[in-house]
Amino acid sequence: MSKLTDVPKRILIGRALRSDKLGETLLPKRIALPVFASDPLSSVAYAPGEVLIVLSVAGVSAYHFSLWITIAVAILMFTVVASYRQNVHAYPSGGGDYEVATTNLGAKAGLTVASALLVDYVMTVAVSISSGVENLGSAIPFVVQHKVICAVVVIALLTVMNLRGVRESGKLFAIPTYVFVGGVFVMIAWGAFKGLALGDAMRSPTSHLHVKPEHTGLAGFAMLFLLLRAFSSGCAALTGVEAISNGVPAFRKPKSRNAATTLALMGGLAVVMFCGIMALAITTRVRMADNPAVDLLRANGHAVGGGFVVDPVITQVAAAVFGQGTFLFVVLAAATALVLFLAANTAYNGFPLLGSILAQDRYLPRQLHTRGDRLAFSNGIILLAGAAALLVVIYGADSTRLIQLYIVGVFVSFTLSQTGMVRHWNRHLRTERNPAKRRHMIRSRAINAFGAVLTGLVLVVVLATKFTHGAWVAVLGMVIFYGTMTAIRKHYDRIAEELAAPDGPSQDTVKPSRVHSIVLVSKVHRPTLRALGYAKLMRTGTLEALSISVDPAETKALREEWERRNINVPLKILDSPYREITRPIIEYVRSLRAENPRDAISIFIPEYVVGHWYEHLLHNQSALRLKGRLLFMPGVMVTSVPYQLESSELAKRRARRRAEWSAPGSVRRGPVDVRRREPTGTGTSGGGTPGQKG
Amino acid sequence: MSKLTDVPKRILIGRALRSDKLGETLLPKRIALPVFASDPLSSVAYAPGEVLIVLSVAGVSAYHFSLWITIAVAILMFTVVASYRQNVHAYPSGGGDYEVATTNLGAKAGLTVASALLVDYVMTVAVSISSGVENLGSAIPFVVQHKVICAVVVIALLTVMNLRGVRESGKLFAIPTYVFVGGVFVMIAWGAFKGLALGDAMRSPTSHLHVKPEHTGLAGFAMLFLLLRAFSSGCAALTGVEAISNGVPAFRKPKSRNAATTLALMGGLAVVMFCGIMALAITTRVRMADNPAVDLLRANGHAVGGGFVVDPVITQVAAAVFGQGTFLFVVLAAATALVLFLAANTAYNGFPLLGSILAQDRYLPRQLHTRGDRLAFSNGIILLAGAAALLVVIYGADSTRLIQLYIVGVFVSFTLSQTGMVRHWNRHLRTERNPAKRRHMIRSRAINAFGAVLTGLVLVVVLATKFTHGAWVAVLGMVIFYGTMTAIRKHYDRIAEELAAPDGPSQDTVKPSRVHSIVLVSKVHRPTLRALGYAKLMRTGTLEALSISVDPAETKALREEWERRNINVPLKILDSPYREITRPIIEYVRSLRAENPRDAISIFIPEYVVGHWYEHLLHNQSALRLKGRLLFMPGVMVTSVPYQLESSELAKRRARRRAEWSAPGSVRRGPVDVRRREPTGTGTSGGGTPGQKG
Repeated sequence: MSKLTDVPKRILIGRALRSDKLGETLLPKRIALPVFASDPLSSVAYAPGEVLIVLSVAGVSAYHFSLWITIAVAILMFTVVASYRQNVHAYPSGGGDYEVATTNLGAKAGLTVASALLVDYVMTVAVSISSGVENLGSAIPFVVQHKVICAVVVIALLTVMNLRGVRESGKLFAIPTYVFVGGVFVMIAWGAFKGLALGDAMRSPTSHLHVKPEHTGLAGFAMLFLLLRAFSSGCAALTGVEAISNGVPAFRKPKSRNAATTLALMGGLAVVMFCGIMALAITTRVRMADNPAVDLLRANGHAVGGGFVVDPVITQVAAAVFGQGTFLFVVLAAATALVLFLAANTAYNGFPLLGSILAQDRYLPRQLHTRGDRLAFSNGIILLAGAAALLVVIYGADSTRLIQLYIVGVFVSFTLSQTGMVRHWNRHLRTERNPAKRRHMIRSRAINAFGAVLTGLVLVVVLATKFTHGAWVAVLGMVIFYGTMTAIRKHYDRIAEELAAPDGPSQDTVKPSRVHSIVLVSKVHRPTLRALGYAKLMRTGTLEALSISVDPAETKALREEWERRNINVPLKILDSPYREITRPIIEYVRSLRAENPRDAISIFIPEYVVGHWYEHLLHNQSALRLKGRLLFMPGVMVTSVPYQLESSELAKRRARRRAEWSAPGSVRRGPVDVRRREPTGTGTSGGGTPGQKG
Repeated sequence: MSKLTDVPKRILIGRALRSDKLGETLLPKRIALPVFASDPLSSVAYAPGEVLIVLSVAGVSAYHFSLWITIAVAILMFTVVASYRQNVHAYPSGGGDYEVATTNLGAKAGLTVASALLVDYVMTVAVSISSGVENLGSAIPFVVQHKVICAVVVIALLTVMNLRGVRESGKLFAIPTYVFVGGVFVMIAWGAFKGLALGDAMRSPTSHLHVKPEHTGLAGFAMLFLLLRAFSSGCAALTGVEAISNGVPAFRKPKSRNAATTLALMGGLAVVMFCGIMALAITTRVRMADNPAVDLLRANGHAVGGGFVVDPVITQVAAAVFGQGTFLFVVLAAATALVLFLAANTAYNGFPLLGSILAQDRYLPRQLHTRGDRLAFSNGIILLAGAAALLVVIYGADSTRLIQLYIVGVFVSFTLSQTGMVRHWNRHLRTERNPAKRRHMIRSRAINAFGAVLTGLVLVVVLATKFTHGAWVAVLGMVIFYGTMTAIRKHYDRIAEELAAPDGPSQDTVKPSRVHSIVLVSKVHRPTLRALGYAKLMRTGTLEALSISVDPAETKALREEWERRNINVPLKILDSPYREITRPIIEYVRSLRAENPRDAISIFIPEYVVGHWYEHLLHNQSALRLKGRLLFMPGVMVTSVPYQLESSELAKRRARRRAEWSAPGSVRRGPVDVRRREPTGTGTSGGGTPGQKG
């Protein structure tokens, strides 16, 4: 099992790191760029196509608007990158949008951002994998003919790998990302050279088709609305830009500066790639349509029909520049698919990490907040994979339809984060007196304010143009996450109130004065002797052994053995004609409590520790059920005295292996949680007297 | 929910009894008869038909052999009844065949009987319900057209009722059984009167059909084999005779005598009913065939085809005597179906009871041996229902095909039980000196020996004639039960050996000298204060509080609160930069153990007790997982100090309700477990000194 999955693991992700090696893995910029940029860079594989698809509603004549849309997306990209460079400097702890919004705008804004990000992670998986399958399909037709199945298989593969504790490894992320970026740049350069210098008329595979406009003669407001919708789709290129702001602690020092530089670099690359692909798409006359089977017409006026596969823009352009099926074409298609799958993998890292932060703030079950907890992460991974797979199946792994759901969440968090940053600078400006620093802050505030206004506008545009096209699903998802997390927080708050210790030690509930200890005995064997030994050590009040008589012969043997061994603990035997175990004990304990309400009762249960799951069925079941009942009785504590059977070694090893499991997302989160790394030291405090010890 | 199922419950089974009312429910003979006899008496509904079906292989001319077969079955019935009357006197404790075989023939024979009985219970459900559906179908055609579904629905209904804790109630058992017995007697009497006195030529619905023999001119050994097969099928009338021998404690005093009388009464009724129905079947020219669609021919020589439904013999006879669709016909058909369903219900009582006895002997998980344990019984009920439903589906609810599997198990336990009884008398004869008692024993031994030989012969006949017809499935089932139970027993024996306490107190593993107590603290709240209070009471060695620092701010607050409250227990704080809880504690405990290997460590965990299942997801998860790890460390005991939240009231009530649940089978098992009811008393023993207490 381990061997089998190791090979694809290492090919795709690289060797898993032990968590104690984590300290050595601070990322240099050349590695940080591919780790954090696979998500935003990979979106140039689908964003250009989405723009053309929306424009095709008004026919090919509208394609010339794509220039303006490209410029608008580039401006937006620069704005967002500039804004997040401020975040990176202001919050070097890697708090991310959730922390920025919570700190500056309050808990509700923070929770909104968190809900948006959770939805966003699901969408990242669904969109990236669907798009990756489409890209792979332009080189391997089988894949695109079985899109949904292939997408679900890839999701399952990523899920299994992440469940088994594979982490991103910076170096192995680098190769496909750099191949992808390099390939796109070579394509743009070679295309420009061929077109401009050689005058070669490159033609994409769809250049001979006509687009049947759904609406002819759109003008005025309708046209504007269409352009805004096209722009909204183009904004898919911006998804994932915020990732670096979560990952500052993973950078080498100076962390903030390096992160900001990487961010700028990423922004520059993304804009060049997006613009270049758009330009080549127009030059090579790529034709796209929302419903290609019907809306793309051949020269004879007939629609191309359902069998015709329209490849993504990036591979159509590659076919025009390099030629369909050439070596460079195949390499680029494969690198594109791989980068898209890596982008999906980032969501597998981000989702449980965000979950652990939310758990710390008690919006999610507390146990999620431990970092290395395999079980906690597993639940997050399975939830993510399940939701993404559901969307992929419902939407037929069609990236165009999934994109409609995608961008809402991203811009909700952009807008709230940038607004929060404006508040942040306002607050700091109230106290800051250094003029140079003040100037710097005012400049930052201006950038963030511009970012907030622009992303806010885009959010309104996205909601307005895409709500009925599917964005409502994303909004619904956010509402569900928000509602669930609010309910969990309310529950924890209510419990915390119930649990709050009253002030002053005397107001506490009546303190027990003595302890009556009871050792449950079924037979005189090693576990019983151990439990008796421990109970004697712990005994401060009375001590007795208790046995339930379900079989007179056994009981007689027990009595005799007890006397023969001269065990100096009184043995109490309760008769149970119906061979019940739990009821007589509960009733006995209840009667003891009634006689001496001020006494606490301590019950020692010898437990066997076994190794196989089926052994659990054969042992300890009565003890477990009894414990379940005893816990409801006030004034009772239950002590398990374990006895390790030989077979328990197995289970011990299994437990240790589970504990050594390393959670996903550690690389991009950085080796230590600097934000929370104030010196706490190790030691003792409190009013303990020396006599307390020893 | 409770209201909805209460109505059919009370109609079919009567009001459930609280177990504390159990003492009042000793059965008079007139109630004991229907409780124990529904299974054997109901088999006259299908046994006559099975005889005719086998004979029809040789054509209608072979039907006259049915007289001899009836006589053979009647002789066998008298023999078995006479034999079991000896069992009832010799084992008034209600031990049943399993105890008789184990005591007299050894563990392997006992386990064989147990396996046979477990298979037998499954078959009782499958056959009785299939046959009940067929009988109901002769009054309501819809039922027989959807046989499998109806049978599965009835199984599901019985399962749900038994899971919810319905028990057989003697009085409600009585009505359908007496109606059934009365109806059959009226039918026999009225049929005899009409035929003999009035000379009325009654004709069954199939009397006009011809049977196409599968083999013509069978003779010699082949004919003998066929007759033996027909006899084997007729032996289905004997299933369930052993039930009374398990239920002696449920009878009023003198228990054994009353049980023996009831047994004789039941045998007499069964023989009369079986012979009467057979006689009427021959008189009214009932025609049966294994494959009626092909082998039953109309006057014109054409087969009747798949749409033709051949009703069971009992309803065909009723149609001939009373007339199809008359009031008495419908009453008898309904009573027959009801009695058959009640017979199936007896298996629901017997299966978990046998399981609890086997659990006492460690052939099944120990926890099954408590009588009132709902969970344990539930598993047995679900296993029984699942196996029966599987058989019903596989065999298309066809009672004729299921019968082939049925009789093996019954005769295995008859034969071994009777052989065991012979040994029993031999043993007693070795010591008994009273001549009158000796004479009595010798007589009993003769009866049992005859029974053993006869049932053993029948077992050989059944195996020989039915093995390839389906009995191999029953044998396979027995082998599986036998293998599983042997493996479980071996496991328990191995563990018992590992656990066995060495002799002399000093040879035990190194006894710890001191206890180092640790209270796990996350916050200063009521559960923590309670745990601290209890730990102080229990403290005999050192005591410290331990907290894991996952958030410096929280840790600081905890320290301050600790000092402010002046809690005089030292507070140790472990740093956990990766926000792990389990690992630092495990490592700390391990280091403590390494420093002082002779100290035991006692860990107090404050636990919240909550009411809803989803609250469990939100609380105690870290504690549970930590406990799971700690149990693997030798020298560590774990004490849960529960704190009952308000919502725990709910769960407490639920637990109490579960505890008050009454297990099925109590009525037929009798109010108390007399066999194990030697006086054990309640008190203390052992070498406790007075100083030990107080």
